[in-house]
Amino acid sequence: MQTELSRKLGVEYAVFGFTPFPAVAAAISRAGGFGVLGAVRYTAPDDLKRDLDWIEAHVDGKPYGLDVVMPAKKVEGVTEADVEAMIPEGHRQFVKDTLAQHGVPELAEGEASGWRITGWMEQVARTQLDVAFDYPIRLLANALGSPPADVIDRAHERDVLVAALAGSARHARKHADAGIDIVVAQGYEAGGHTGEIASMVLTPEVVDAVAPLPVLAAGGIGSGQQIAAAFALGAQGVWLGSLWLTTTEAELTSPRLIEKLLAAGSGDTVRSRALTGKPARQLRTEWTDAWDDPQGPGALPMPLQGLLVADAVSRIQKYEVEPLLGTPVGQIVGRMTSERSVQAVFDDLTRGFEQAVDRVNRIAGRSEEQ
Amino acid sequence: MQTELSRKLGVEYAVFGFTPFPAVAAAISRAGGFGVLGAVRYTAPDDLKRDLDWIEAHVDGKPYGLDVVMPAKKVEGVTEADVEAMIPEGHRQFVKDTLAQHGVPELAEGEASGWRITGWMEQVARTQLDVAFDYPIRLLANALGSPPADVIDRAHERDVLVAALAGSARHARKHADAGIDIVVAQGYEAGGHTGEIASMVLTPEVVDAVAPLPVLAAGGIGSGQQIAAAFALGAQGVWLGSLWLTTTEAELTSPRLIEKLLAAGSGDTVRSRALTGKPARQLRTEWTDAWDDPQGPGALPMPLQGLLVADAVSRIQKYEVEPLLGTPVGQIVGRMTSERSVQAVFDDLTRGFEQAVDRVNRIAGRSEEQ
Repeated sequence: MQTELSRKLGVEYAVFGFTPFPAVAAAISRAGGFGVLGAVRYTAPDDLKRDLDWIEAHVDGKPYGLDVVMPAKKVEGVTEADVEAMIPEGHRQFVKDTLAQHGVPELAEGEASGWRITGWMEQVARTQLDVAFDYPIRLLANALGSPPADVIDRAHERDVLVAALAGSARHARKHADAGIDIVVAQGYEAGGHTGEIASMVLTPEVVDAVAPLPVLAAGGIGSGQQIAAAFALGAQGVWLGSLWLTTTEAELTSPRLIEKLLAAGSGDTVRSRALTGKPARQLRTEWTDAWDDPQGPGALPMPLQGLLVADAVSRIQKYEVEPLLGTPVGQIVGRMTSERSVQAVFDDLTRGFEQAVDRVNRIAGRSEEQ
Repeated sequence: MQTELSRKLGVEYAVFGFTPFPAVAAAISRAGGFGVLGAVRYTAPDDLKRDLDWIEAHVDGKPYGLDVVMPAKKVEGVTEADVEAMIPEGHRQFVKDTLAQHGVPELAEGEASGWRITGWMEQVARTQLDVAFDYPIRLLANALGSPPADVIDRAHERDVLVAALAGSARHARKHADAGIDIVVAQGYEAGGHTGEIASMVLTPEVVDAVAPLPVLAAGGIGSGQQIAAAFALGAQGVWLGSLWLTTTEAELTSPRLIEKLLAAGSGDTVRSRALTGKPARQLRTEWTDAWDDPQGPGALPMPLQGLLVADAVSRIQKYEVEPLLGTPVGQIVGRMTSERSVQAVFDDLTRGFEQAVDRVNRIAGRSEEQ
């Protein structure tokens, strides 16, 4: 499973795995893919440093990358307090009421929210980069828009490839114009922030729009068959995020959330603004329903919504309040039916890929049995 | 491009083309695919008879099929008048106001609406079948749910395969239990009535759910690359509808609508209840915006909405009222950028398919250059 891009990065499989968990990222790279650590949750530089040290110690010299969040659109006012001041009181009350309805306990006095907005702010992402550039990362991905020009330059000086997510051909072209190296075409069915164009249509459109830049297909990919489909559509690799959430190396702390993920079908997600203020696919819960309800106040724009709900989300997760408990995940969640090791997932992906290639060759009349 | 199903039907390519136009259906079958004539617009049996005669005379003995609409859920009250009586006055006024805002002229006295609801009603579909079973059709497809058991039996007695569209694995299993022969997995990105699960996820899920029944992938398919992707996902064929709308054989009477289709991008469609009361993907227009507006009255359930808007849609189409002018079409509309013959489209599809197979084999390390 080799493309120009996988050869350039020196990986066996053109399978890029995005994950917030260092152990998963390292296992993906060790299995022959390319692990990408999501940095958004690291508000303290030392935490990121500790986890990159851990990856270095466990990745057997294989290449890996980092994913940061630098929103293309910024809200004026740089401190968290400035942003806090922009949140209407009615929205705060709606959060309180919704939590009260479900009897969600408060966090203990002085207990920090585990889910912070600050990682979404550019200066935090920059401190993450200051840490990360001391490590031999080979890829820097940005989830919302192209990174600033100086960040792209800094990456290129260190021989780090820069990737940016795009939900449309137009966004992809903007990224290409900004000088990035790889476009991740994020289809409607993907977990997290997504547009409305499905991978089947989006992937070839983005490939055509930015050629000869390589494109990774993201959204709806959780099997070797889907990987083969992505390559047929012109991708030079695939970008998988959801699939790793139920691996044994993942560090989801809520057993109930894992159960929910294992039980969910492909129809149990929703593209909702509930979590960050921008449409992001996640498990559908009474929490997303409350924010998506036309009778309710509706979600605020990014980054206000994320700041507004940060503590609430922490409380829901800590106390595992079933009806409200969710997480960003794609429609592929319907395929996540058991906890397996990253290596077992990879074995399945590569086996399914070979079977799909056999199948396509039979249909094309190119197999030896023909 | 041969599968078990294409061999059974005796066609060269496992490409099923759905179209309301007899000339397109015949051209698809002549080109080596399988043309399927949409029957919903035939309210008079003689019109359907005339067009099936035409197909017989122009299909060069190649196989073809028919697509009818028998909704699984029925509204009580069998006559059009009974259904008319269920429409609230406020909704009628909203139609009038919206048309008046855009200065849409009335139809001439006694001029029939070209877009009728009646084709959606089961007894009309049954008169269509009475006509169609006198012709050597090889496939009967139903757009909304499984056909009634007696219809399936009647088809099977005549060696006609029965297909049903499904937007989820659960629906697909229900169809399989009802005794149909083929499931059309209709992805989110498809034109017309669709669910929310994208083809990349839906196709393999439906394949697994109904195996060994054959599955056709529908939604997002307008190139040979996408056909190869569908086969990688386990489909035994592809079902294309939108792509034929801008072929030279199509009989769209509105030049402005053709221009709109040729100009539209993949992001210019919307899944809206505006046309029939059930979510159907179509060009986004001020008409769909009006019905999707949370401040408006919202669309009525099927079949009320279709009956309510039938005359309005006819007027918009006849007078080509630009801001309101639309049609069901999938996200693949972004690929429809020139008017071409059905044969030219087929040449592109087969060429693109071969290129995609080459590409996948190169990536899999199976090409001779490796």
